Amino acid sequence: MPRATTAFLTDRYELTMLEASLQSGAAHRRSVFEVFSRRLSGGRRYGVVAGTGRVLDAIADFTFSGAEVDWLREQGVVSGETLDYLAGYRFGGDVLGYGEGECFFPGSPILTIRGTFAEALLLETVVLSVLNHDSAVAAAASRMTTAAHGRPCLEMGARRTHEEAAVAAARAAVVGGFVATSVLEAGRSYGIPTMGTAAHSFTLVHDDEEAAFDAQVRAMGPGTTLLVDTYDVERGVELAVAAARRHGGELGAVRLDSGDLVAQAFTVRRQLDALGATTTRITVTSDLDEYAIAALGAAPVDSYGVGTKLVTGSGLPTAELVYKLVEREGADGQMVDVAKASAAKATVGGFKVAGRVFENGVAQEELVVGCDDEASGARVLAEHGARPLQLPLVTGGAIADEHRGPDAVRAAAERHVASRAALPYEGWRLSEGEPAIPTRHVLG
Amino acid sequence: MPRATTAFLTDRYELTMLEASLQSGAAHRRSVFEVFSRRLSGGRRYGVVAGTGRVLDAIADFTFSGAEVDWLREQGVVSGETLDYLAGYRFGGDVLGYGEGECFFPGSPILTIRGTFAEALLLETVVLSVLNHDSAVAAAASRMTTAAHGRPCLEMGARRTHEEAAVAAARAAVVGGFVATSVLEAGRSYGIPTMGTAAHSFTLVHDDEEAAFDAQVRAMGPGTTLLVDTYDVERGVELAVAAARRHGGELGAVRLDSGDLVAQAFTVRRQLDALGATTTRITVTSDLDEYAIAALGAAPVDSYGVGTKLVTGSGLPTAELVYKLVEREGADGQMVDVAKASAAKATVGGFKVAGRVFENGVAQEELVVGCDDEASGARVLAEHGARPLQLPLVTGGAIADEHRGPDAVRAAAERHVASRAALPYEGWRLSEGEPAIPTRHVLG
Repeated sequence: MPRATTAFLTDRYELTMLEASLQSGAAHRRSVFEVFSRRLSGGRRYGVVAGTGRVLDAIADFTFSGAEVDWLREQGVVSGETLDYLAGYRFGGDVLGYGEGECFFPGSPILTIRGTFAEALLLETVVLSVLNHDSAVAAAASRMTTAAHGRPCLEMGARRTHEEAAVAAARAAVVGGFVATSVLEAGRSYGIPTMGTAAHSFTLVHDDEEAAFDAQVRAMGPGTTLLVDTYDVERGVELAVAAARRHGGELGAVRLDSGDLVAQAFTVRRQLDALGATTTRITVTSDLDEYAIAALGAAPVDSYGVGTKLVTGSGLPTAELVYKLVEREGADGQMVDVAKASAAKATVGGFKVAGRVFENGVAQEELVVGCDDEASGARVLAEHGARPLQLPLVTGGAIADEHRGPDAVRAAAERHVASRAALPYEGWRLSEGEPAIPTRHVLG
Repeated sequence: MPRATTAFLTDRYELTMLEASLQSGAAHRRSVFEVFSRRLSGGRRYGVVAGTGRVLDAIADFTFSGAEVDWLREQGVVSGETLDYLAGYRFGGDVLGYGEGECFFPGSPILTIRGTFAEALLLETVVLSVLNHDSAVAAAASRMTTAAHGRPCLEMGARRTHEEAAVAAARAAVVGGFVATSVLEAGRSYGIPTMGTAAHSFTLVHDDEEAAFDAQVRAMGPGTTLLVDTYDVERGVELAVAAARRHGGELGAVRLDSGDLVAQAFTVRRQLDALGATTTRITVTSDLDEYAIAALGAAPVDSYGVGTKLVTGSGLPTAELVYKLVEREGADGQMVDVAKASAAKATVGGFKVAGRVFENGVAQEELVVGCDDEASGARVLAEHGARPLQLPLVTGGAIADEHRGPDAVRAAAERHVASRAALPYEGWRLSEGEPAIPTRHVLG
């Protein structure tokens, strides 16, 4: 994690609520918060859970050191008793959630946080920041990799998003099916393969294209990717192939970064084949989104490099996940379902378990069961033949480390492939429409 | 800065270009890179330069420690000579740029980086990440504060963007005219006032609204802001005013977070006045953007809390700033203008200075002068009566610290107010249209 503590990546109101609830005593009430989405905007067919591993990192690092406590005291944000509580804070409750990479639908309880009101309350902002960002990018990535029909998709959007968001975006892109990133830190932090060769500036800093290509092939071998559209594409391709051959090999690939990519791909492929460079691949990288990728499906393109549209969620830069109190202890010690009274912002109260019902391997519905606990919920899921979707991520404050780190990213990518493959055919469509499967709420 | 080094917030191709250009010798050519935007998407009338102070932070922290060098070696990203170069890297060139907060237009050279090809090349990704993100948020913020006509705008979007982007977004929002943020880290890092009181969960965790309001007023005094729409707004307002009075004062404000805000604002204002709570303010916070804020202009609202649409740039989550090589040394030691040959991605080659021409205090045009150096450019600007726009931000590697840190954020906010105020009337319109002033390129 970039910061020593994540505790200040937080809205101030969490601390003022803590202060007031410590005084009223409500801070100590057992509570259940739930992260879910009321809708899938843009007529998307499914959402993609992403960021779970980073949420666990954020929870692990959510502590208030002396520096944070001092600042809060100086600023008068909260008073003595609250500062003492914060100084000793470590999340000690439970978190269950959908496996990272899983598809989700309106009402899917993708993360459930159970603890005292105080301890669960404090995590709201950072949990939402991570999940809203990462899930938005992963959803876009998933649509793009669907459109790419197995051709590799490469993440190169760092320059079009906040510098730290870029690292998380690369990770989320991999959850959604991308195979590599341009960002070095994403390689180091998450074990994601990195790639990248040259920009137009590299060609321009040399006296001519020939000198630039020669320099690049000399440094990186003929298997490199040459950017051929700085001046004239036809001439660029010719020089690129020749440069590789001068250094004893066939050129790895050419990159096209401007113009009409469909027409250009055909022209360049013909030219490469005519030159005998039949193994030289074509990669395209200009302003791609899932629709442009789909349109390139019939063109002789070998891989897609995607930037802006990927890291900005292809029109939906944030998922619409919310963090809501759904159940809490009452004065009598009994748990009570709660929900805000608003037609537009409806919340279904109460703890829930979730499962997915399949028929011949195809998902049919998302079953969300209001129940007392995991055990009773599991029984209801079993009765309906639903496959449980939630995993224990934190238990009594102990974080399940297998859901963090590079291995978890790889596992999430695999989980997503399986989850998406099991959607009904309509679920894979890029066009606007209904969620791939309906969500059904039942009481256990 | 969150990370000890910013050097890995970088695209891999910068390092491969470095390697190839060190071998070809082009790495040592004196070069000029320029950050500019080819267009203002969405028919926006102006852009807002934001993130300059963070760019300077990123340059200061752009060093490769042993950990970075080791990782690059292990991964085989670059070889020995390049690793030596990186281990000793510190940017030693010049940066000039528009003052943070300044309005910009298509072709405005908002940042110019001058050094060897190698040293300027390496900064590309992190410079663009910072400026593209921060300028997108500041542009949205500026439109919102224009629409708010002097009513305070409060930033509360952390949960709808990456957790570190949230901190930068709060900073950029202030550059665009916002007066406070919910994010604690933005308060600590940039001296921005923080605010926040309570969420619906706070009301719901208590036995009823009365108990919740009582707890909040007890902890924070009657001057606090109570969220009155958890159950029934009319009843909520009544209880809120009563809670404050029980604790000896008039309620500071009520917050409305759902429903038809225009209608509700009038109803609630009438109710508050009828209760004698004429000093109690109304703040609204539900799904606001610049258009919703404009629509609330006639409603009795006292402040706006903006989340999602602010941190996602109100439809344009990234500015379209690019980082292009525009001039470099040739084999003969002379500087040569360079530019990619592409109609759609046109770049004007050469070093440039920029100024703005005013008539009776109103901006008339953006004058961009292609010239040899600052001194010759300044003479041309003076001949045209143009006010220079660029400041020396880094000189021979020495960073001008007055453009970093909390004071620089305040200065940027003031600069933006002045810059926007000097635009012609059309420049303040929210509707789509032409840039507020035209950009004219001349040769010095």
